Amino acid sequence: MEQEQIIKPIAYIRTDFKEKFGIPRQSGRAPSLCGRIVFLPEYRNPDAIRGLAEFSHIWLLFDFSESHRETWSATVRPPRLGGNARVGVFASRSPFRPNPIGLSSVRLEGIEQTENEGEVLIVSGVDLLDMTPIYDIKPYLPFSDCHPDAVGGYADTVCDMKLSVEFPERLLSLLPKEKQEAVIECLTEDPRPAYQDDANRIYSMNFSGFDIRFRVAENCLTVTEVVEMKK
Amino acid sequence: MEQEQIIKPIAYIRTDFKEKFGIPRQSGRAPSLCGRIVFLPEYRNPDAIRGLAEFSHIWLLFDFSESHRETWSATVRPPRLGGNARVGVFASRSPFRPNPIGLSSVRLEGIEQTENEGEVLIVSGVDLLDMTPIYDIKPYLPFSDCHPDAVGGYADTVCDMKLSVEFPERLLSLLPKEKQEAVIECLTEDPRPAYQDDANRIYSMNFSGFDIRFRVAENCLTVTEVVEMKK
Repeated sequence: MEQEQIIKPIAYIRTDFKEKFGIPRQSGRAPSLCGRIVFLPEYRNPDAIRGLAEFSHIWLLFDFSESHRETWSATVRPPRLGGNARVGVFASRSPFRPNPIGLSSVRLEGIEQTENEGEVLIVSGVDLLDMTPIYDIKPYLPFSDCHPDAVGGYADTVCDMKLSVEFPERLLSLLPKEKQEAVIECLTEDPRPAYQDDANRIYSMNFSGFDIRFRVAENCLTVTEVVEMKK
Repeated sequence: MEQEQIIKPIAYIRTDFKEKFGIPRQSGRAPSLCGRIVFLPEYRNPDAIRGLAEFSHIWLLFDFSESHRETWSATVRPPRLGGNARVGVFASRSPFRPNPIGLSSVRLEGIEQTENEGEVLIVSGVDLLDMTPIYDIKPYLPFSDCHPDAVGGYADTVCDMKLSVEFPERLLSLLPKEKQEAVIECLTEDPRPAYQDDANRIYSMNFSGFDIRFRVAENCLTVTEVVEMKK
């Protein structure tokens, strides 16, 4: 029973986030935010995904690669509770858990045939850091995975505070057209750490090679600057 | 990227199935089928499940302990397709996968305070072998895990063939009252291996210490004998 198990990545995901700041806190929060799942050479086999294109959603089991710890803590402070209330680690989706495996359902937008990386899965609604290792991909089965009657504990009762976003057109247009909707969705989710509420503070979100700078006053986020970062 | 990760069980589940034969093929198929999740001593800490009781459903990440293999196969034959069609392993929930980790959502019926095992989670709708190691428990979050619009590929289009079950009262009454509904649900799911359709054959399902013997003709399953097994 105490046996350990060794698991190995089968793929990794490319996303617009090279840093944790700004990543939506669950999958599906930023529906336009896309990712590309690239299989590692050993698993780059069209047979292994035969039939997958028929599914609208897939599960990703992934490595909380930035959250490895030698020890574990019985309680965590979920951002949805404002960062001040503690809940049990097994009552949370916190990355800091005994086995740092994450679970996200994403929409499967398509499968791209590439020259150098074989079949690449295009997914949306991601909540993962760029280069996150993926341990498993499973189809989403509505008849066993979808529970419309489910009650979500503290996650249900917390007010879902979205911000209104003011992104001046001259700044927004600096971003590629296909990234514009996703960046607004991410900002709407309020990337600030819990507890911070300083209207004068300038925050900086690293998104798709751009530094997006903004302020938040009341429930309105205003983008003040967009700087393309050096490659 | 090629890095391995070591994971360790945090709990195990007690169920009525000591053998694979008869286990429902997904979670929720036998809603009355219960299990008891017992934490390993290191994780037996009430703080670690603080707030969990507020959730109606939980995810279990578990070890496909009976399905470890040295190698992996790109395709599998799902029982829902009659066992004759092959789909990609990542387009299936097959236990035979590169990393043998399973994913099941179960209903959280309650949390039992025990003398020797600490808090034990009582769950229903299980699809796991007795003593399956559990790697992680996460709350089911309706806002990110529930996709009523999801399309389930081949799993959707296959006819959902349930059997009608004839379980004579004098045989059924040999089972403890609280197990009777669950055993019927499991039989309704048709425990036979794909492809087998021999009306004369007697099958035997090991359930909760009883040997349940039955035949199947057309779409009707008839229980012929119930034998209590020696402990």
